[in-house]
Amino acid sequence: MRHHSPAAGGIRGRDLAVRYRRIRRTTERLLEPLSPEDCLVQSMPTGVSPVKWHFGHTSWFFEVVVLRAHFPRYKPFRPEPEFDRLFNSYYLSLGEPFDRRLRGVLARPTLEELWQHRRYVDEHMAELLEGFDRRGEEERRALWERVETALQHEQQHQQALLRDLKHALWSNPLRPAYLNNAEPEPGFEPVASPTPPSALPELEWLPFEEGLYEIGRPYDGEGFAYDNERPRHRVYLYGFGLASRPVTNGEYLEFLEAGGYARPELWLDRGWDLLRAEGWQAPLYWERVDRGKGERDWRVFTLRGVRPLDPREPVCHLSFYEADAYARWAGARLPTEAEWEVAVAAFASSSSDSKPPTIEGTFLESGLYHPRPLGPSERGPVRALGDVWEWTGSPYVPYPGYRRPEGPLGEHNAKFFFGGQMVLRGGSCLAPRDHVRVTYRNYYPPETRLEVSGLRLARSRPNERS
Amino acid sequence: MRHHSPAAGGIRGRDLAVRYRRIRRTTERLLEPLSPEDCLVQSMPTGVSPVKWHFGHTSWFFEVVVLRAHFPRYKPFRPEPEFDRLFNSYYLSLGEPFDRRLRGVLARPTLEELWQHRRYVDEHMAELLEGFDRRGEEERRALWERVETALQHEQQHQQALLRDLKHALWSNPLRPAYLNNAEPEPGFEPVASPTPPSALPELEWLPFEEGLYEIGRPYDGEGFAYDNERPRHRVYLYGFGLASRPVTNGEYLEFLEAGGYARPELWLDRGWDLLRAEGWQAPLYWERVDRGKGERDWRVFTLRGVRPLDPREPVCHLSFYEADAYARWAGARLPTEAEWEVAVAAFASSSSDSKPPTIEGTFLESGLYHPRPLGPSERGPVRALGDVWEWTGSPYVPYPGYRRPEGPLGEHNAKFFFGGQMVLRGGSCLAPRDHVRVTYRNYYPPETRLEVSGLRLARSRPNERS
Amino acid sequence: MRHHSPAAGGIRGRDLAVRYRRIRRTTERLLEPLSPEDCLVQSMPTGVSPVKWHFGHTSWFFEVVVLRAHFPRYKPFRPEPEFDRLFNSYYLSLGEPFDRRLRGVLARPTLEELWQHRRYVDEHMAELLEGFDRRGEEERRALWERVETALQHEQQHQQALLRDLKHALWSNPLRPAYLNNAEPEPGFEPVASPTPPSALPELEWLPFEEGLYEIGRPYDGEGFAYDNERPRHRVYLYGFGLASRPVTNGEYLEFLEAGGYARPELWLDRGWDLLRAEGWQAPLYWERVDRGKGERDWRVFTLRGVRPLDPREPVCHLSFYEADAYARWAGARLPTEAEWEVAVAAFASSSSDSKPPTIEGTFLESGLYHPRPLGPSERGPVRALGDVWEWTGSPYVPYPGYRRPEGPLGEHNAKFFFGGQMVLRGGSCLAPRDHVRVTYRNYYPPETRLEVSGLRLARSRPNERS
Amino acid sequence: MRHHSPAAGGIRGRDLAVRYRRIRRTTERLLEPLSPEDCLVQSMPTGVSPVKWHFGHTSWFFEVVVLRAHFPRYKPFRPEPEFDRLFNSYYLSLGEPFDRRLRGVLARPTLEELWQHRRYVDEHMAELLEGFDRRGEEERRALWERVETALQHEQQHQQALLRDLKHALWSNPLRPAYLNNAEPEPGFEPVASPTPPSALPELEWLPFEEGLYEIGRPYDGEGFAYDNERPRHRVYLYGFGLASRPVTNGEYLEFLEAGGYARPELWLDRGWDLLRAEGWQAPLYWERVDRGKGERDWRVFTLRGVRPLDPREPVCHLSFYEADAYARWAGARLPTEAEWEVAVAAFASSSSDSKPPTIEGTFLESGLYHPRPLGPSERGPVRALGDVWEWTGSPYVPYPGYRRPEGPLGEHNAKFFFGGQMVLRGGSCLAPRDHVRVTYRNYYPPETRLEVSGLRLARSRPNERS
Repeated sequence: MRHHSPAAGGIRGRDLAVRYRRIRRTTERLLEPLSPEDCLVQSMPTGVSPVKWHFGHTSWFFEVVVLRAHFPRYKPFRPEPEFDRLFNSYYLSLGEPFDRRLRGVLARPTLEELWQHRRYVDEHMAELLEGFDRRGEEERRALWERVETALQHEQQHQQALLRDLKHALWSNPLRPAYLNNAEPEPGFEPVASPTPPSALPELEWLPFEEGLYEIGRPYDGEGFAYDNERPRHRVYLYGFGLASRPVTNGEYLEFLEAGGYARPELWLDRGWDLLRAEGWQAPLYWERVDRGKGERDWRVFTLRGVRPLDPREPVCHLSFYEADAYARWAGARLPTEAEWEVAVAAFASSSSDSKPPTIEGTFLESGLYHPRPLGPSERGPVRALGDVWEWTGSPYVPYPGYRRPEGPLGEHNAKFFFGGQMVLRGGSCLAPRDHVRVTYRNYYPPETRLEVSGLRLARSRPNERS
Repeated sequence: MRHHSPAAGGIRGRDLAVRYRRIRRTTERLLEPLSPEDCLVQSMPTGVSPVKWHFGHTSWFFEVVVLRAHFPRYKPFRPEPEFDRLFNSYYLSLGEPFDRRLRGVLARPTLEELWQHRRYVDEHMAELLEGFDRRGEEERRALWERVETALQHEQQHQQALLRDLKHALWSNPLRPAYLNNAEPEPGFEPVASPTPPSALPELEWLPFEEGLYEIGRPYDGEGFAYDNERPRHRVYLYGFGLASRPVTNGEYLEFLEAGGYARPELWLDRGWDLLRAEGWQAPLYWERVDRGKGERDWRVFTLRGVRPLDPREPVCHLSFYEADAYARWAGARLPTEAEWEVAVAAFASSSSDSKPPTIEGTFLESGLYHPRPLGPSERGPVRALGDVWEWTGSPYVPYPGYRRPEGPLGEHNAKFFFGGQMVLRGGSCLAPRDHVRVTYRNYYPPETRLEVSGLRLARSRPNERS
Repeated sequence: MRHHSPAAGGIRGRDLAVRYRRIRRTTERLLEPLSPEDCLVQSMPTGVSPVKWHFGHTSWFFEVVVLRAHFPRYKPFRPEPEFDRLFNSYYLSLGEPFDRRLRGVLARPTLEELWQHRRYVDEHMAELLEGFDRRGEEERRALWERVETALQHEQQHQQALLRDLKHALWSNPLRPAYLNNAEPEPGFEPVASPTPPSALPELEWLPFEEGLYEIGRPYDGEGFAYDNERPRHRVYLYGFGLASRPVTNGEYLEFLEAGGYARPELWLDRGWDLLRAEGWQAPLYWERVDRGKGERDWRVFTLRGVRPLDPREPVCHLSFYEADAYARWAGARLPTEAEWEVAVAAFASSSSDSKPPTIEGTFLESGLYHPRPLGPSERGPVRALGDVWEWTGSPYVPYPGYRRPEGPLGEHNAKFFFGGQMVLRGGSCLAPRDHVRVTYRNYYPPETRLEVSGLRLARSRPNERS
Repeated sequence: MRHHSPAAGGIRGRDLAVRYRRIRRTTERLLEPLSPEDCLVQSMPTGVSPVKWHFGHTSWFFEVVVLRAHFPRYKPFRPEPEFDRLFNSYYLSLGEPFDRRLRGVLARPTLEELWQHRRYVDEHMAELLEGFDRRGEEERRALWERVETALQHEQQHQQALLRDLKHALWSNPLRPAYLNNAEPEPGFEPVASPTPPSALPELEWLPFEEGLYEIGRPYDGEGFAYDNERPRHRVYLYGFGLASRPVTNGEYLEFLEAGGYARPELWLDRGWDLLRAEGWQAPLYWERVDRGKGERDWRVFTLRGVRPLDPREPVCHLSFYEADAYARWAGARLPTEAEWEVAVAAFASSSSDSKPPTIEGTFLESGLYHPRPLGPSERGPVRALGDVWEWTGSPYVPYPGYRRPEGPLGEHNAKFFFGGQMVLRGGSCLAPRDHVRVTYRNYYPPETRLEVSGLRLARSRPNERS
């Protein structure tokens, strides 16, 4: 059969319910340090939403994608189309969404009502999943796919919620923190700048041969994947080298001090225009503070407040244009998404034997909400998953043989193809560990700097500078 | 002496303290039906602020205008310039204000902290006013003037708070109400449309003779007045007639149904451009609802929810351009502010004898928060004070002989002169009774429709249509 | 009779025809130094039009206002509504005008065709005026008024044409000149900066008493006036002093060097916002040129090319906000239009006896197209007419008793009342001498700097600084 | 050697000079029907330039790229940096370009001066090419490459000039034509709508097998190519079918009549947003004209005036989003640029034997300046080159192994990579025949509709609908 979905045959309702509760609970925990007021802020008309909106939208998504379709007796929490009106993001097949620039006006329903809504959805989901094992295989597979889609969707919004919250807090002149801990997290202690050269592992170029490779996920394979990761398909790659680790704050600071933001020849046309229009002088959330005597220190705003810039951390909050300009300055380039996936899949499989899985870095579960500094012992391929989303040189387009899902799920990823967005790979410190996978394709407009987005260099010849 | 201030000689500290507490309490009561979330909404980048911002700003104003100047030991609630940064509206002499388009991001300080701030200011004000009577006369006068200015300022923000809240609630597609009462207020019952002709008093033209008049408030007079109401000065007026009552919803509906919004010849140049650019088809907060069978009813959004349009109410939420176009269509014009003041002062003094003071209408204290319908018995000059701010045909400029106050108070009104704003007179249903006076000059950009703004017709010859 | 128009009884067709030819010829002469390319430039989407458009529009205006109404057999030059579509500026009663932002696309009709159009209109006008004396008195009066209106309209566009041309030339990085004469005009030689103190007449304050005055033009008076100059009416003025001469470049430079553009307390709210948004640092067309050794000279762009700033010239190309800020800095204020008119009418009548008419300055006829430097002997009231339009502190509103003309002429001035524009008085070096009159009310948005606009100071007490 | 350039060994100076004169002459002929006024119009702030600017820019390009580098005694026509300031488009390595939104203000230099400039450049180029054969081989190759680049650049501007002229003429409400010929060109006679089914060749799907292919131009190959066409490289393609001919007006009209512009599910996210924001209802230059009795005809504006829509013509002036939406509606998709090139290269080589080269359509040389209607006999692969640029589903990115040229030529194409632009292939009726090649990569923002841009369908399986 055609849409032969990943084997749900083995899935049991109890396991799915456990997974459901765990993921939903993660979202809820993110709200704990926040007041209802915090949750309402929308700091810009576009590109960000209030925490509260993410909170309501994710529950609504279960109603629309799972409960309405698979729970015949389901009665919506509030009379339709009330919540459709408020919490529909962009699914035109579900009606006209409310103006996204005005999500910050939604004081009503109150956050308390949205908690009730959440519990209401959870109860119905629990009931639905209790009956899961009694359904036929075909039905189980379809239901599982929808539940899993909505869970993955919720994980996307966990990242988005923290991303938008960070901008909201930063927009406040008082620069309040999300979390204030007296003691820094272990391994997260600030470091003096400039970094001692010994503090960082040297960058290695990991070589890959020219040839025919496969990337993506098959339509009939195991496990969950978004439609845009499919199908698995062949690509022809020329020999290339991929950097063993992401670019660091310290390296980026060199670029900056070498006049990187003042040299048009390093920038793409639109990047240079944006730099001038927006007055970019450093990554988002960097700020220069006068230390007296004409000296100035770089500091960064994080979800744990303003901190000195740590040169060992992977650089983040870069636009695609900044990542691209840095790479050009460094005599390298961004990898394509195919190069990235081929290389990281190789790392992952090679590290599966005796060596520890070093390609895994920092995820949401760490509670850091910020990339962790690189240590001197981190040699070989490290931090490909977690820490920072890595910009690639690949525009977001469908894979050859792609089939658009029907209904609203066809709007989830497919209508953003060919939209000038660029693919990012590898997840970040805001992404849950089990949300990140080697084939995962994230995508953002090249101008965005809100994401925890950095880069890893590539070059065309494995043994020389490209 | 020059700035010979209004006699504060008779003022006693205790009376001032009572007045202080009463006015401050009024603000607080306005917040009672609201959650912290409600108080944070800013529904547009310009022209409106969150309720919370009004709340914090008014207390901050006492700190800046009264406590810092007259309470030597005063220690600010939060280290300066923290609150200056957040709650300075536009006083450039007090530093660079925070971007007004982003007031909605101020989740921190929390509303709870602002309540603490408020109590802190109140305690210090109480202490200050306790010592009031022990000060010298000159000092008492100066202090009284500043306290009174800050109180009047707070009353302005009581109106602004409700004005902005109304827009915030209306911007929510669910159209939630500020107050939900099952029973309509007495005298506020909805009426069937069309209104029976008997339901409304006929419009009378009250005649005034050509001659030299005086308006405004003298520099050396009694009682409080804003700087822009001064000095009292002579104006030469030609004979005119002023309408006995404001224009009603029913009358405005006739204009609308006569194609008023589709006939450029009725509109000023900028008004017509705005109408087209904004798609105006009716006053703000009017909406047409399908009743079935091709019939449509007009409904209006109020702070008490959506209600049927009552033709007997004074029309409100008009821009100056709509008021002007209506007047032209009706064969009349708007009064100048001098005409308005001369006429209403005459009404006020004539009504002070045997007749009841009919020129007083609906104020904040009524708790209606909406203009009250006109009754058939309201003949003669009525509703000049309260109900709706009345647009005049006078741009906002200083009176001859005007002297700009020094310091921040010189920025309060004076820097908005010559700014293309138009004067409105008479107060509204959102204004406290004792804030409204015959000489009071309100002013707004001609395009604004957020205010409870309506009109009263005038004509140039007392006995004929102008 | 009501609209008893100014006595045209004495007008003879031949005189009117002579006047017609003279004014039309003036427009044509202005185009002589220009190529068809020069005439097509529109340097901004709003606020300016191509020379060519002014050229076509003025002839079209005769067609619409005079020929269609009074020449029964008149056949339009091009089939209607072709030219109505192109050359209607803003008369909505004559149809929907072409988008004013796109006037620069009108390569067709060619300039040559517009010359044919002009001659065609001229021939028909000649024929019409030949029969003028044979018409009845009523008809003669009506026709005269329309012809005169269209002639005055053409004189307005002579100024506008040069104003817009200046901006068009300045927008070209090569800064080409309209006129290049090797020899400066007599009396127009550049002067060394700083000016010797002896070079300028001291500023005198000419005193006026408090009292009732009259301004404006009566509805039944002699001679032509625009509708907005009517009716003559009483105003009550407090005692004031008016400066004997306009503010000069040298004086304005002092303001600038005293940090005038960096001190918010000198500016109105909207003025300061504009200054920051637009980056104003000096009047329009001033530019600072490096002279080497850290010294910099001010130069100004004129229709005769870039020249050193002459401190003796009346300052021009100021917005209302700059004029207002200068006046505040100088401890004075702008006059109201009533003060200006009362004072200048007094100057004019007093100078009509033995003394020479010193209030007349530089007009279009001089061919200078720039204000002429003030000389040391120019004492007493000088340069009230000509040289620079003088900003007043009066918003543009109708006079009491104003009657709006019917038809398109009612759109000419009346629909711009209450539009936030400010009145300017006195004409400029670009205005024909016989277009300027003491009662003439020009008006512009306060932000405009394209006009040859300067200021004359006033103060409230005749004998002291206000 | 590295940049081993295409063999210029065989090139002779005389041949190059002949080619130079021919291409330059073509540009000049395009100006013949135009007045200096026509040449100055810039109808929008961005995306278009005046004809005159294209005219001056192309000669300036020879100065900068060829003469300054290879003609040691070359003295610029006007003192530097005057023309650099005016005619630099976007080469930041050559200084700050003049604001492109204001190119329409450049009345000076006059068009006549630009003709002198052109002749001056031509004379020096003639002198330079006379000495061509005397130079060493290395030098000949370098010089040839630069001359050829500047010639190809001029051919690009021939298209751009007509493209922008078309928009300029269309922006004029009189809708003037570039060419008015009484008699239609042969083969260009209007046809009655609806088209008889027999009038069009059926669309055939030409099949291509899955496999490894090569596209692009080698770094060491023969003949000229832009840097962005290099290097020749391998791509892996899955089996696909390509339509035998472009989509026609008649077919597009079906889409339109089936509600294509009202069905969001057919559109990409940004396409739908644009459609709504811009009010798109049909391709650019289509307009609906009332025929009376409620019937309406589609007409199209062309460089030869307004004409009835011919259903047999390839549809053009589509944005990428319209092309994409049409393809989705038709159950197909756009080809990738690799698919397009592989297929068209195969057509071209197969047609080189006995069959006529049907893949060639209409070019600039035809003088039609519009796509030619398809005829019933045009079966098999037709019109791949000429007629309309065909949108592909490939974002504009560099080929693997791409090397950016040094100096200004590195800005010509390379800084636009990754800019959200999409690749178009095949040339158009405005492109000179010898400018079009199978490997040529044109690129435009997906929203542009100014180009003569249409589409050819593809599908993923060669034998079924994708």
